[in-house]
Amino acid sequence: MKASVITIGDEILIGQVLDTNSQWMANRLHLLGVELVETVSISDTKEAIVSGIDRALAIADLVIVTGGLGPTKDDITKYTLVEYFNDELVLCLPVLESIKEKFRQRGLPFSDLNKNQAMLPKQATILPNALGTAAGMWFKSQGKHLISLPGVPYEMKGLMDNEVLPRLKKIGSFPSQAYETYVLYGVGESVAAELLETFEETLPNFIKLAYLPSPGRLRLRLTGVNQNKILLKDSIASYGQKLMSVFKDFNVIEGDVSYIHIVQQYLTNNKKTLAIAESCTGGKIAAEITSKSGVSSFFLGGVVAYNSSLKETLLGVSKSTIDTFSVVSEAVAKEMALGIQKKTGASYTIATTGNAGPSTDQTQEGLGVVFIAIATPEKVVVERFNFGQPREKVLEQAKNKAFEMLGKEILKNQ
Amino acid sequence: MKASVITIGDEILIGQVLDTNSQWMANRLHLLGVELVETVSISDTKEAIVSGIDRALAIADLVIVTGGLGPTKDDITKYTLVEYFNDELVLCLPVLESIKEKFRQRGLPFSDLNKNQAMLPKQATILPNALGTAAGMWFKSQGKHLISLPGVPYEMKGLMDNEVLPRLKKIGSFPSQAYETYVLYGVGESVAAELLETFEETLPNFIKLAYLPSPGRLRLRLTGVNQNKILLKDSIASYGQKLMSVFKDFNVIEGDVSYIHIVQQYLTNNKKTLAIAESCTGGKIAAEITSKSGVSSFFLGGVVAYNSSLKETLLGVSKSTIDTFSVVSEAVAKEMALGIQKKTGASYTIATTGNAGPSTDQTQEGLGVVFIAIATPEKVVVERFNFGQPREKVLEQAKNKAFEMLGKEILKNQ
Repeated sequence: MKASVITIGDEILIGQVLDTNSQWMANRLHLLGVELVETVSISDTKEAIVSGIDRALAIADLVIVTGGLGPTKDDITKYTLVEYFNDELVLCLPVLESIKEKFRQRGLPFSDLNKNQAMLPKQATILPNALGTAAGMWFKSQGKHLISLPGVPYEMKGLMDNEVLPRLKKIGSFPSQAYETYVLYGVGESVAAELLETFEETLPNFIKLAYLPSPGRLRLRLTGVNQNKILLKDSIASYGQKLMSVFKDFNVIEGDVSYIHIVQQYLTNNKKTLAIAESCTGGKIAAEITSKSGVSSFFLGGVVAYNSSLKETLLGVSKSTIDTFSVVSEAVAKEMALGIQKKTGASYTIATTGNAGPSTDQTQEGLGVVFIAIATPEKVVVERFNFGQPREKVLEQAKNKAFEMLGKEILKNQ
Repeated sequence: MKASVITIGDEILIGQVLDTNSQWMANRLHLLGVELVETVSISDTKEAIVSGIDRALAIADLVIVTGGLGPTKDDITKYTLVEYFNDELVLCLPVLESIKEKFRQRGLPFSDLNKNQAMLPKQATILPNALGTAAGMWFKSQGKHLISLPGVPYEMKGLMDNEVLPRLKKIGSFPSQAYETYVLYGVGESVAAELLETFEETLPNFIKLAYLPSPGRLRLRLTGVNQNKILLKDSIASYGQKLMSVFKDFNVIEGDVSYIHIVQQYLTNNKKTLAIAESCTGGKIAAEITSKSGVSSFFLGGVVAYNSSLKETLLGVSKSTIDTFSVVSEAVAKEMALGIQKKTGASYTIATTGNAGPSTDQTQEGLGVVFIAIATPEKVVVERFNFGQPREKVLEQAKNKAFEMLGKEILKNQ
């Protein structure tokens, strides 16, 4: 089954809003075995929607459209689809009741505009939206499927998981797809490619190797599509082993995991704890850890010592160390890591201090220089990096490096 | 001038990577006055690239393609384009020298694969890439333009700003585009739409109103396109005033700013400082503030007290308050805000404590409940919210609410 995902909204085409829905849907469809051939963002005009759907239905069996289902005048997806499929709007009582109930619960007044949300196409299958007022709609035409979902991310996700994917599983027969990712630290893309030259030549037709470089790490992905699920699985596994052995002298991790996963697993299993002391990364490391649930078993928290004074008051870094070595220095990073370890009692700590840019404060180091310290129950290690510019790259790279350094220390203990 | 942006890469179609390039380019093109008619992500096969370009060149005058310019075997964009435009690859000496220099500076070995990066199409205009090894390429054909850029975000951005946009400005004559955004807090989409019914009917053809709802806030956007720049600017301004007056009883902010900008402006101008004490938001508020440069003038930092023990040791929250009211409570939020104010000496502080989910710890409050406290030089205010589920929505909404609450306190003082 081939699919196309269409996102409707001028706010995307003028760059005001970042489309995260497409990636989420792409991943869900991939796991199901649906081949996504394109994702497209188009304007919320009738012409753009009609021509977008025309084209997508020509190349795909399944088209999922998001956006434009709100109650306001700029939301025209529903009306356009009803016309496109020669359908008509009728009042859907169960949806009306569920919308009214939502307004009752939240103590909000119910209006005609809200009632319009219950006017739905007669021939489409209506997909109830537990988290909002815009129902999903499933149109069928000439053996093809077009599904319209709201653009609000958590509403779309709820509808996909509860309504769309279970139904797709029933109607489709999917060839098996599989992929496995290997994460390399400290190896550039071109160096990896040279080491893999022979390996790539031996790959069978149905397995592809992709290089996904990002600041500080390189992911290698083996992807396969085959009707024979067992053959596919075994092949990916065996070529994966060969790939791992090519990099036996480097740091390579199997699976689309990063060091943060290794850290989480080790700390949780061994009842150890982690705390952070961030200067230049400004909370980014803590936010990354706490973006996932289930981290309270090992993550205590820590200090964001953005201003130099907090390094002294909250972390116990000595003023003379700062005066002697400047705030961006190995000595300060070390005292920060030990300071937060002492204050929180954490088994492991991470500390960062650096010049993220675009300009430097009064330090002796250049733009892009970051010191990262890791304190373990036994010792402290500090490394100096020059991540260059721009700022966003420095912050991202410092975050990845910090997890890498901690991961390596932990792997040494295993 | 109409444009299409094409992102090449299987990693996007299987949902492994989030495409942030398209939004960034969309915004830059919009500011220049280019009308972006679509953004498309396609597979990195020759067939997909050729058919994607065919289609884009049929509907747009300018096509910008990103991705697939790396040195490895899965990178085929350059070879596909050279064939598509009947061009041929020749060695580009200045690019070769610049790549060699980059390797020298970083102390890395230079290989044939790297040299391949300097083999570039003879007839295309070569755009030097200061931040990487993949040069940009500008093809012209039948009055249309196709530009190929690397997919690494900061390399693409550098090439756009330094090479692509300055050249586009010279060749295009663009109709003026303008937009202004108004941010509303505490008003739902359907309520806003009813209040704006008359307003919408009076809008001229060349101005459109869009509703952009997100958890906790609603953005309204007036967009206009017109050959007459002055007429356009005046019209947007005057309809903007009318729109503002419709919401005079609510919190409405002109400009695509959020409270975080108001906070930053006020604190900087008045030499006041801010510190944070985050429990459930886990560093997200600090990370949002420090993602921008120039915040060190007012942002001191703070504490991520994810584990309850850190609330006591680092923030001075009393154990009896936690035992009596539980960790998710008005009393604890208040003591956290005052605690971080005392520890850091900040003029203003933000504190959060709540049940982000998916499960609750030992608290008396339900899933999704968050207490947010704001301490000012004069007082502390605390509010209780129920943001429901899922976790990502709770965290996002708590962050936005925190900036809104602080912004409101600050606006009261102005």
